[in-house]
Amino acid sequence: MSGKRVYFFGDGQADGDAGMKNLLGGKGANLAEMTKLGVPVPPGFTVTTKQCIAYQQTNDLGDALKADVREALARVEKVMGQSFADANDPLLFSVRSGARVSMPGMMDTVLNLGLNDDTVQVLAAKSGNPRFAFDSYRRLVQMYGDVVMGVAGHKFEHAIDEIKAARGVQLDTELSVDDLKELIATFKGIVKSEAGATFPSDPYEQLWGGISAVFRSWNVQRAIDYRTINRIPHDWGTAVNVQAMVFGNMGEKSATGVAFTRDPSNGEHRFYGEFLINAQGEDVVAGTRTPQQLNNAGRDLLPAGNEAKDLPTLEEAMPESYRALDDIREKLETHYKNMQDVEFTIQDGRLWMLQTRHGKRTGVAAIRIAAEMAAEGLVTSDEALLLVEPDHLDQLLHDQIDPEAELTVLGTGLPASPGAAQGEIVFSAEAAVAAAEAGRKVVLVRRETSPEDIAGMNVAQGILTSRGGMTSHAAVVARGMGKPCVAGCSDLLVDGAKGEMSIGGKTFKAGEMVTINGTTGAVIDGAQALVPPHMDDPNLETVMGWADATRRLKVRTNADTPHDARQAREFGAQGIGLCRTEHMFFGEDRIMKMREMILADDLAARKSALAKIKPMQQDDFEGIFRAMDGLAVTIRLLDPPLHEFLPHETGDMKDLADEMGVALEVIERKVESLHEMNPMLGHRGCRLGLTYPEIYDTQVEAIIGAAIVVKGDGIDVRPEIMIPLVGAKRELSDLRERTVAIADRLIDEAGIELNYLVGTMIEIPRAALLADQMAEVADFFSFGTNDLTQMTFGYSRDDAGVFLPDYVRRGILPSDPFQQLDQSGVGQLVEMAAVKGRQANPDLHLGICGEHGGDPSSVAFCHKVGLDYVSCSPFRVPIARLAAAQVVVREKMAAGK
Amino acid sequence: MSGKRVYFFGDGQADGDAGMKNLLGGKGANLAEMTKLGVPVPPGFTVTTKQCIAYQQTNDLGDALKADVREALARVEKVMGQSFADANDPLLFSVRSGARVSMPGMMDTVLNLGLNDDTVQVLAAKSGNPRFAFDSYRRLVQMYGDVVMGVAGHKFEHAIDEIKAARGVQLDTELSVDDLKELIATFKGIVKSEAGATFPSDPYEQLWGGISAVFRSWNVQRAIDYRTINRIPHDWGTAVNVQAMVFGNMGEKSATGVAFTRDPSNGEHRFYGEFLINAQGEDVVAGTRTPQQLNNAGRDLLPAGNEAKDLPTLEEAMPESYRALDDIREKLETHYKNMQDVEFTIQDGRLWMLQTRHGKRTGVAAIRIAAEMAAEGLVTSDEALLLVEPDHLDQLLHDQIDPEAELTVLGTGLPASPGAAQGEIVFSAEAAVAAAEAGRKVVLVRRETSPEDIAGMNVAQGILTSRGGMTSHAAVVARGMGKPCVAGCSDLLVDGAKGEMSIGGKTFKAGEMVTINGTTGAVIDGAQALVPPHMDDPNLETVMGWADATRRLKVRTNADTPHDARQAREFGAQGIGLCRTEHMFFGEDRIMKMREMILADDLAARKSALAKIKPMQQDDFEGIFRAMDGLAVTIRLLDPPLHEFLPHETGDMKDLADEMGVALEVIERKVESLHEMNPMLGHRGCRLGLTYPEIYDTQVEAIIGAAIVVKGDGIDVRPEIMIPLVGAKRELSDLRERTVAIADRLIDEAGIELNYLVGTMIEIPRAALLADQMAEVADFFSFGTNDLTQMTFGYSRDDAGVFLPDYVRRGILPSDPFQQLDQSGVGQLVEMAAVKGRQANPDLHLGICGEHGGDPSSVAFCHKVGLDYVSCSPFRVPIARLAAAQVVVREKMAAGK
Repeated sequence: MSGKRVYFFGDGQADGDAGMKNLLGGKGANLAEMTKLGVPVPPGFTVTTKQCIAYQQTNDLGDALKADVREALARVEKVMGQSFADANDPLLFSVRSGARVSMPGMMDTVLNLGLNDDTVQVLAAKSGNPRFAFDSYRRLVQMYGDVVMGVAGHKFEHAIDEIKAARGVQLDTELSVDDLKELIATFKGIVKSEAGATFPSDPYEQLWGGISAVFRSWNVQRAIDYRTINRIPHDWGTAVNVQAMVFGNMGEKSATGVAFTRDPSNGEHRFYGEFLINAQGEDVVAGTRTPQQLNNAGRDLLPAGNEAKDLPTLEEAMPESYRALDDIREKLETHYKNMQDVEFTIQDGRLWMLQTRHGKRTGVAAIRIAAEMAAEGLVTSDEALLLVEPDHLDQLLHDQIDPEAELTVLGTGLPASPGAAQGEIVFSAEAAVAAAEAGRKVVLVRRETSPEDIAGMNVAQGILTSRGGMTSHAAVVARGMGKPCVAGCSDLLVDGAKGEMSIGGKTFKAGEMVTINGTTGAVIDGAQALVPPHMDDPNLETVMGWADATRRLKVRTNADTPHDARQAREFGAQGIGLCRTEHMFFGEDRIMKMREMILADDLAARKSALAKIKPMQQDDFEGIFRAMDGLAVTIRLLDPPLHEFLPHETGDMKDLADEMGVALEVIERKVESLHEMNPMLGHRGCRLGLTYPEIYDTQVEAIIGAAIVVKGDGIDVRPEIMIPLVGAKRELSDLRERTVAIADRLIDEAGIELNYLVGTMIEIPRAALLADQMAEVADFFSFGTNDLTQMTFGYSRDDAGVFLPDYVRRGILPSDPFQQLDQSGVGQLVEMAAVKGRQANPDLHLGICGEHGGDPSSVAFCHKVGLDYVSCSPFRVPIARLAAAQVVVREKMAAGK
Repeated sequence: MSGKRVYFFGDGQADGDAGMKNLLGGKGANLAEMTKLGVPVPPGFTVTTKQCIAYQQTNDLGDALKADVREALARVEKVMGQSFADANDPLLFSVRSGARVSMPGMMDTVLNLGLNDDTVQVLAAKSGNPRFAFDSYRRLVQMYGDVVMGVAGHKFEHAIDEIKAARGVQLDTELSVDDLKELIATFKGIVKSEAGATFPSDPYEQLWGGISAVFRSWNVQRAIDYRTINRIPHDWGTAVNVQAMVFGNMGEKSATGVAFTRDPSNGEHRFYGEFLINAQGEDVVAGTRTPQQLNNAGRDLLPAGNEAKDLPTLEEAMPESYRALDDIREKLETHYKNMQDVEFTIQDGRLWMLQTRHGKRTGVAAIRIAAEMAAEGLVTSDEALLLVEPDHLDQLLHDQIDPEAELTVLGTGLPASPGAAQGEIVFSAEAAVAAAEAGRKVVLVRRETSPEDIAGMNVAQGILTSRGGMTSHAAVVARGMGKPCVAGCSDLLVDGAKGEMSIGGKTFKAGEMVTINGTTGAVIDGAQALVPPHMDDPNLETVMGWADATRRLKVRTNADTPHDARQAREFGAQGIGLCRTEHMFFGEDRIMKMREMILADDLAARKSALAKIKPMQQDDFEGIFRAMDGLAVTIRLLDPPLHEFLPHETGDMKDLADEMGVALEVIERKVESLHEMNPMLGHRGCRLGLTYPEIYDTQVEAIIGAAIVVKGDGIDVRPEIMIPLVGAKRELSDLRERTVAIADRLIDEAGIELNYLVGTMIEIPRAALLADQMAEVADFFSFGTNDLTQMTFGYSRDDAGVFLPDYVRRGILPSDPFQQLDQSGVGQLVEMAAVKGRQANPDLHLGICGEHGGDPSSVAFCHKVGLDYVSCSPFRVPIARLAAAQVVVREKMAAGK
C-alpha cells in the first residue's frame, strides 16, 4: 500500500482539501477544507479510503498505518495542549466513518475514546460535572461494546431500562452519578459475558478497535444494501475521521445541532436547523428527542401543536453562538457554492463545526436553490444546472392529491419529503416487502425508522413516522429516495407489535388504507385519488430553460397514444422516438380483429382481417400526428411474436373459439403451433414482416394514410417508419423497398408532397456489428437498448430476476444493465454502430429508444457517443433534458471553459 | 452493363480461358481452354454470367448484347463455312447453360436451333438421312416448346405415345419419316394451343428465345432449391454457351457419350464411360436407355446380368474414335491436373468434345485419385490435398453393413454411391420429406430420379433406382450428397402409383424396411445393422498424413464419454475441446441423483445429493482421461438450466414424487419455480455456478480427483476446466478463484505435481466485446459459436426453423449461420475477441467448440483468425484436419509459393 495514509487537519492547517473526497471521504475532505477556511473545527486526522480497502483483505491495520496515526495524533495533542493517554489531562477522540458520498446512518461511529476508570475521574474533576463524565464513559462502553465488540445493542438498553425501573425514574437524565457508575460496571459485565473479552482500558487499544470497526462497518449487510440501492460502488471504501472530542452534553451551556444553509424541503433562502441543549450529536439525528428550532423564523413556521413550538430557539438561548454559526453559514455557501448541511457542537459556549457537506434536498428545493443561487450571483447558470440532480425532477413529477377531493385529515406531521402517496398500512419493512412483491401498494408506518428499514422504505409508496424531525432518518432517506414522507406526526400513536395505529380518534389495522401528503404533512383517511403533477414551478421553468439552451442532445418520448404524446409534449418532448404499434391492438374491440388475422388460414383471410384493423390503426396515427404537429414521430412496425396476442388459458381459448365460431381445437392448435421455446429470440419483428409482408404493408398504409389526412388539415407531419429486429442488411433493404413502394404510391395518389423516413432499430448485436451495411439502407438508427442488452448479455429480462439482483449486490456487475446502460459492453456496440453507421451514411440520424433513454448516466453516454436524441417515457423527459445539459456543462468545465 | 458480353471460341482460338469460370461458367471457360489446347471443339461463343444477372432485372436481352451475339455468330459461320439463317446450307446451334459450378440437370438446354420447315429439307438432303433430319426437327419443336415456350413436357410425350400406339410400334426409332412429319405438325399444334403462340421459324428468333430461356432457368424453383442445398449463391447467374451443332444421332457411325478420365466411383486409374450409338447427349444422362461401356475393361467389370454386358464397347465399335478420345483423356488430365468428366459426340466418324470439367467423385475415389496423381507426379502433395473435398471424407466415414450379418440379398444394381443405408421404403420425394420430418429414416425408391426429387433425396438415408447408369441423375446427385445409392437395379420393379416394389420374388409396400449397399450395389431385405466405418484405406492414410504435416490448426473433438473419446482419437483428434458434463447425468441411475440435488431445500441437502453424484462424475472423467492419455481434455462445468433435468409431464412428475417419497405438489412447485420464459437466456452456465457454488465445487473435485487417480496410474493427464456462459469478468474471476483453491488443495493433499488450466467459453457477445478483461483471468478461450450465433443474431435455434430456411432460400442470409459460421457478424466478434484476448494475455490458448468446428469454411476462418484449434464431433475430425490443411495450401498458393 503506497501513498500517504493519514491526513492531519487542525489549527487552520490541513494536509487535505475538499477536492480529495475519493481519498478522504466527503467528511474528511470537508473537515480539511473548513479548517483551511478558518472555521473552528476540532483538530484531528483522516485515515484514507485506500486503507479501508486494504483492511478488507487483511483484517489488520498494520504497523505502518499505526505509526502514521501516532504521528498525526501527536500533532493533534500539540494543538490541543493535551495528551491522549495522559491520565492527568486526557485528550478524548471520536472515530467516525466518512465515505466518498454520504451514507446516512449506515456506518459506525465511536465517541469518547480515551476514557477509562482513571481518566473519567479527571474528566469529572476538570469539567466539574461528574454526571457528564460518567455518562460519557457509560456511552463509550455501550457504543464500543456494540460497534467494536459486537454485543447486541438491546442488551445495554435492557440494563438501562432495568435500573430506571429499580430507581422508579422515567428518563436517562434522572439517573444519578452512582447509578451511572453501577451501569458502567453492568455494561462491562455484559461485554465480558457477551463478547468473551474485557472492555479495553488502554486508549490506544480503544483507538485501534474503533478504526477497525469503522472499516468493518463498510461491509455490513445494511451498508451493502444501501450502496446497491443507491448504486454506490462497493470498492470505494470509507475513510475514518479521528477527531478531538468536543462535548455538547457538558451542561446547559453546551448544545449540539444539525443545520442546512437553506431550507432543504422547499429551498427557501433561510437558515434552517434543529438542536438540542446538553446532548450529543446522535441524539438529534436519531429522532428520539424532539429537537428545538435553530431560529425564531423556523419556529414560526412549525404547525400548531408541534412540541418545538414552545421551546426556545438557539437564536434565543445562545445568541452569540447563533450569530457565529450564521456567519459560518454565509462563509460556507460562498465557498462551496452549494447549500450545506452542517453539524455543530457548542461546548461550554464555544462553537465547533464537526461537518459540512452538500445538503440533501427535495426536488422543489433543488430547483429553487439552483434558480435563486444563480439570481444571487453565487453561481453561474451552468453551475446552477449541476445543483439539480436529474432524479430531483422526478420528485417534482410525483403524484399530488386531487385538489377537488374532500379529505378527512386525521392529523398533521412534518412535511418531510414532498408528493402524495396512498396504500395499505404496513408496520414493518418485512411486511412492506412482502406486500410489494405481491403487487400491492403500501405506506410504511413506524414510530421512527432505522437503517434496518431501508428495504421496506424502498418498496413503499410513502413513509409516515410518529417521532423525529425533518432531519430524522426517515426524512433524510425518504428525500433521497424521492418518496413522500410525513415525519414526527405527534398526533399518531403507533403500536407495531399489536399491528395498529391510531390517529384523529380512529384506529387502523395493518392492511387498511391511508394517504399521506409529504408536501403539507397531512395524514388523510382512506385511499385518495392522486393526480399527476404539473410542471408549473417558475423556478423549474428557469432551470429547464437553461438546460434546453445548453444541451445538444434532443429529447423525444416513447408514446403510443395521443394522450401520452400530448403529456410528453408538455414535459418538453421534441418528438416521438418510439411509438409501439402493438399496444394499440390490446383494446377490447381490437384484440379480436388481431386474433382473427392471426388465426387466418391463408393470405386472403389474413388480408381481410387486416383490412378491418387498418382504419383503427390509421385513426391512432392521426391522433398522434396531430398531437405532434411539427415534430417527428417514429412508428415501429409490429414487433412481438403473434402468440402474445392469443389467449393461453383453456377458458380464454374457449371464449375466443365461441366468439369466432370455430372449434376450441382450432384455437388450441394455432396457439400450440405458435409456441416458442425462447420467444425473445423467435419469430417476431421484421422476421414476421418478411413472412407475412401483408401485415407491414397494412401498417405502412395506415401510417402514410394518416399522414396524408392530417397534412390535409394543415398539420406539419413528419412520419418516420421504423423496422424492428433487423440483423441482416437484406431484411432491412427488402422491407424498406416494400415500404417505399407503398408510401410513394399513396403519396402520389394523394397528389401531395410528404416527406418520410425509413429506418431501423439497432437491437440485435449483429446489426450493430454490421452497422455500415445497415446504414446504406437506413435513414436513421434507433438503438433499442432493452433488447440489445438482453442479447449482448444473454439475459432474458423476464428471467434474470433470479440472479441479477444478486449479481449487483455481490458487485459482479456494477449496476443492473437494464436500468443503467452497460457502457463497456452494450455501449461498445452502440458506439461502434454510431461510428460505422455515420461513416457509411453521413446523413444518418441516431437515437436511442430503450429504457436507458431516461437514465441520466446513460443520457450522458448517448451525448458522448454523438447520438442526435434520446427517447424516454413522458415522465422522464425533463430528467433527460437536464441530464443532457449537465453532460455539456461538465464537458465545458473539464475543458476549462 | 460494362465489359465484354460475348466470348468466342473455335478453330484453336478463344477469347476466354479456364481461369474465367466466374464470368463464363465452368462449361464456357473449359470450352475456351480446350479449344486453345487443340482439342476438337465445335466452335461457338459464351454469353457471360453478368448478362444473366442483368437479364433477371429487365427480362430483355437488349440490343447491345444481340449485336455482340451476331458478331460472334459471324465468326462461327466463318470457321464452319456455313451460315446460320442460310436456307441452303444451314448452320445449326445448341444453346446450353453453364454456371460457375456444375448444377447437373438443373437448367435448360435447347438443341438444333436453326431448323425450320425449309432448312430441315436441306439437312435431310445433305445428310442423306431424312429420318435424322426430321427427328432433329421434332426434337427442336419439342424442346423449344417445353423450355422456351413453357408447354408441359408430357403433352409432347403423350402425342408420341399416341402415334406409336396408332402405328403399333414400341420404340421411337420405329417411327417413319412421315410419322415424324406428322408428329412435328402435331407438336406445333400443341405449342399453338398451349402457349398461345406459334413456334418461330426464324432462326434468330429461335436463338433469342433459347438464350433467354437459359437465363430464366437460373431462377426456376428446382434450381433455387439445388443452390440452397449446395450453398451456391443465388447471385452468381449462369452463362449461356451457343455452339455449332454436331450430331451423335446422324446414323450408326455417330454416337454420343459421357466419360471420366478415372473411375469416379473408386478412383481407379482407368478410362471410364458410357455411350450410345445414334443418340443425342441427353439420352445418356437421362438414363432412359441403358448405355454401353466405353471400353472392354469397363464392360468386364459389370455385374453379371447387366444389359450392357452383351453390348459392344466404343473400343470395339469405333476403335479410331476411341483412341482419339483416349489421347484427349491424357491431354486433359495432364493439363487440368484433375480427373475430368467429359462429354463427346462422334458425328459420322469424327470426334468432337462438347465439355470437360472436374469430375464429381465418391470419397473413396477422391482419396485414391489424390494419392495416385501425386504418386504419378501429376500433382504435388499440396495440390493433391486440394483434390479431396472435406465432405468426401464424410462418405468414407459412412456406415457399412455389419460384415458378420447374414443377409438376404434381393438383387444387385450399380454401386452408384458408397456406404450403406437402411430405412423404410418411400416412393416419392414428398413421402420422404414427410417421414423424415416425423423423425423416421427412409430409403427413396424410384424408377429413375429427376431434379424434382432433390428435396426427397436430401432427407433420405439412401436412394435406390431401377433404371439409369452410373452417370444417371440419381447417381450423380447421390454422390454429390455423399449418400449411398444403388442405381439401375434391373432386378427391381417399381410401381410408384400402386405404392409397391418387387425384387427377388418379394413384394414390398411403402413403409416396409430395406437396406442398400451403395458400395457393392446390393439390395438387402429388412433393416440391417450398420457398423461405423474404419478409416483403414491406405490412400486415406497417405493423404491425411500430408494434411497433418501441412496444417497449423490442431483438431480436437467434442466427446462426453470414453467411447466417443477413443473413437475420435482413432479419427485423429488431438484432444478433447469440449466435454459436456451434463450429458453424464441423463443415465437412468444418475438422473435421480441429479433431481434429488435440484429438489434439495437447502445447502446441506444439496451437498448431500452432490456427494452421491461426485463418484459417478469422477468415474466418467477417469475413463475420458485414460482414453486421452497425453492429450488435453477440456471439461465444461454444468451449463444447462436445472429444469432440463426435471420431468415436465404430470405422469412423469408423479413417478418422480413416488420414487423420492415426496408429494406431487412439491415436484410441481419446483418445476414451476424453475420455469423460464427464455431458458436460452436464463439461469444457466456460470450463473448457476455462482448461485449454487457447491455444484461447480463438486465437479471440480471430481475432475481433479480423477486426474490425480489416473496420474497415479502413469497417465499423462492434462485437464482444462472450462467455465461456461461468462459475460462479465467477475463471473470468471470469482469462479476461477474457487476452482483454483479447490484444485490446489486436492493436488497438495495428493502430494503430486499436476498441471491444469482454467478458461472460459466465449459464447456471450459481451464476453467477446470485453475479451481483454476476460483474458486477464483465463488460460484459454473456447468459442462457443452455437450460442454466440444465437445471441449475435437474436435467433433461438429451437425456434428459428420457422423462418430461417426461408431466409436462406430467399437469399436474405447466404447460408444457415448454425451450419456455416457467419464470418461477417459472429466472425467479427470471434476475431475481435482473439485479438483483444491475445493482447491482454499473450499465452492465451484459443479454440472453437461450436458445431462450426467441423465445417470446412468455418475451419478455414478459424485458421485465418489465428485460433490454435478447432473441436468438432468425432466423425468430423478428419474433415476438419483436411480443411485445416487446405486453407494452408491455398494461402501458400495465393502467396505464390
